Amino acid sequence: MKLYVVGLGPGNLGEITPRALSAITESEVIAGYRLYVELIRELTAGKEIISTAMKGEVERCQAAVEAALTGKTVTVVSSGDAGVYGMAGLVFQLAAGHPELEIEVIPGVTAACSASAVLGAPMTHDFAAISLSDLLTEWDVIETRLRLAAQADFVLCIYNPASKKRGDYLYKACRIVLESRSPDTPCGIVRNIGRDGETSVVCTLEQLASLPVDMFTTAVIGNSDTVVINGKMVTPRGYLI
Amino acid sequence: MKLYVVGLGPGNLGEITPRALSAITESEVIAGYRLYVELIRELTAGKEIISTAMKGEVERCQAAVEAALTGKTVTVVSSGDAGVYGMAGLVFQLAAGHPELEIEVIPGVTAACSASAVLGAPMTHDFAAISLSDLLTEWDVIETRLRLAAQADFVLCIYNPASKKRGDYLYKACRIVLESRSPDTPCGIVRNIGRDGETSVVCTLEQLASLPVDMFTTAVIGNSDTVVINGKMVTPRGYLI
Repeated sequence: MKLYVVGLGPGNLGEITPRALSAITESEVIAGYRLYVELIRELTAGKEIISTAMKGEVERCQAAVEAALTGKTVTVVSSGDAGVYGMAGLVFQLAAGHPELEIEVIPGVTAACSASAVLGAPMTHDFAAISLSDLLTEWDVIETRLRLAAQADFVLCIYNPASKKRGDYLYKACRIVLESRSPDTPCGIVRNIGRDGETSVVCTLEQLASLPVDMFTTAVIGNSDTVVINGKMVTPRGYLI
Repeated sequence: MKLYVVGLGPGNLGEITPRALSAITESEVIAGYRLYVELIRELTAGKEIISTAMKGEVERCQAAVEAALTGKTVTVVSSGDAGVYGMAGLVFQLAAGHPELEIEVIPGVTAACSASAVLGAPMTHDFAAISLSDLLTEWDVIETRLRLAAQADFVLCIYNPASKKRGDYLYKACRIVLESRSPDTPCGIVRNIGRDGETSVVCTLEQLASLPVDMFTTAVIGNSDTVVINGKMVTPRGYLI
């Protein structure tokens, strides 16, 4: 009985690791959000697919655990890394009563890293990853984390900066960061990382507050050392050059 | 003129993305810390190698930029992700006077993700990555970041928890986190992630303070919600199950 929880990376086959690929190939059942399963459709021919809409995470992972308990080899896919706002935690929780089920998490390239690569090198120093989604987390907690992380001068990587119902969350987050960071701080957003139609913008913190973003966007806010070099965001680490 | 800055992931060929592999294959020159170049020696036959000792980052990256400026295709490799405590920032800084040089950062699986995968799913909620190396950062800054990140209830991923000269830094870091987090908080360390002799331990924050660690170790400190399920660290994200 084997259940893989796999991170697909940003969303093209060139950024899926061989280890992840091999788990998918070996599996009889693939479970994941429809969009992510679609990204790997070339790899899933003939396999059983467990795919539900965006809010169906619990049902989908429950079905994956149940399939694995029947003896099938199953892979649950997440975009990016399955352990960063992905399905890995939920799978362990749902399988808590089944220590006999072997669960292997296979890491992938998370959006913090793939967005940073597009923007330049904004995260070469300490950083904090914060999701602005308040579906599962109280907004108060998110605000506190933003405020303390900004005070600590972490580079910030913002996951889920907006959704249809949360159009102004990135604006609110930027206002909090602006309490302790200059409006000129270099920032950037990347949309559709690694997929068709990838776009990116390097801007200031003041400008970031007003940029249109959606759930396919990742935002990065520089720290007090971040600079723009030839159009790229760069956070020096302190080397003497 | 093309300079790739590539993340190799945790350190085995199965976790290098096809995109990273293709940059390495295409390159005439490979630059990197000796240990990392060694990890990909199967891929570098016949290529020019720029490899210096651990503290030779600036000279090595400078030589890589110069080689690229002569028209050679060059790859600078980092372990994990090149943008997270890796060489990407330094390369952009050193190439600042050469906007004609095309620099492409290719992301990889960073230690935060690969360590988390070994330990279970400790980072499925907001997290902060902090390096304890004070070679390039004042210890005061590191202390402040630890303290504020702990107060904000971030999961903490500790890079570079120790070196020969800094044997007690993880202990000091744990004491700071203990100011605002329970001694029973689930924690873990992974040594030699993805390489021969990989080992991992799940323990409490109190125990973590006394564990022997070195520069090949990554440590993860759970947040106030983190639990241990069947021996794995799991940080629930708030799904109702």
